[in-house]
Amino acid sequence: MSEVRWLDEREERAWRSLQLMQMRLNAQLARDLAARSELSYQDYMVLVALTAQPEGRMRLFELGHQLGWEKSRLSHQVTRMAERGLVEKLKCPSDLRGAVVGVSARGRAEIAAAAPGHLEAVRRLFIDLLAAEQLETVAEVCERVLAAVAEEELRTCPPCTELAAE
Amino acid sequence: MSEVRWLDEREERAWRSLQLMQMRLNAQLARDLAARSELSYQDYMVLVALTAQPEGRMRLFELGHQLGWEKSRLSHQVTRMAERGLVEKLKCPSDLRGAVVGVSARGRAEIAAAAPGHLEAVRRLFIDLLAAEQLETVAEVCERVLAAVAEEELRTCPPCTELAAE
Repeated sequence: MSEVRWLDEREERAWRSLQLMQMRLNAQLARDLAARSELSYQDYMVLVALTAQPEGRMRLFELGHQLGWEKSRLSHQVTRMAERGLVEKLKCPSDLRGAVVGVSARGRAEIAAAAPGHLEAVRRLFIDLLAAEQLETVAEVCERVLAAVAEEELRTCPPCTELAAE
Repeated sequence: MSEVRWLDEREERAWRSLQLMQMRLNAQLARDLAARSELSYQDYMVLVALTAQPEGRMRLFELGHQLGWEKSRLSHQVTRMAERGLVEKLKCPSDLRGAVVGVSARGRAEIAAAAPGHLEAVRRLFIDLLAAEQLETVAEVCERVLAAVAEEELRTCPPCTELAAE
């Protein structure tokens, strides 16, 4: 087995601050959202993912994959959102692999109502703090990492490979 | 009410790619960790937070705040980890606000065993993809954002203010 390449101080600083920022920023955005809307941050993330799709719907499997949530967490979340009328569970007749979930008119209305306030928080706590070149670097870094993650998913996650091959 | 400042294309690109990277990178790291250890990514995050403390312990409230988890999710997670012997629930006699959780010897052993493989994945999917200046920018951006989040927490979250005042 090859020797462990521990992170040096510079690498450790970047990785740890990214992990911390993720946790703390999301937690603050979630509190802000909860204070100004009926949506939790999890509701918001699901609605963002669905409304980014051309028809506002996704297979449950894909949604879970994109959010990185385990099946039980996702199914619990979607069930509660369906009870509140934010999403609808649909069947997809061409796909035996199961459930499809779509955003409802009410879900679209709620995310549209919450978005301006949420964006103000995103500006205050992230966008407006960064210089233009920093924003550019963030986008480049994230896109590079996303490409590497997508490649590794294809190699290591058989269901993702099936999805990609469709 | 002031006009909504929607994100422009450049801002939208940076914010969306960051959100997506967060989700997809964490999901892939979680799958990788699950494949090579008995720890879930959530277990790992809790153990990282605890082992970063001088005595390996934190108040449950602070741990939840740092991870950005709701109380029910945190308490469920800590209970399962205590059952598996990874952490211990402790009482803190000087603090009526409640439970303290500490990493156990077994928890320290498991995170030490999982860390090298996890770090390899962190290198492969993040650190080694970035140029030195990009790493530096990531650290600067995250630290700037963390400082702004901490300020806003003090203004908006009374329990955080209490914590900070202690």
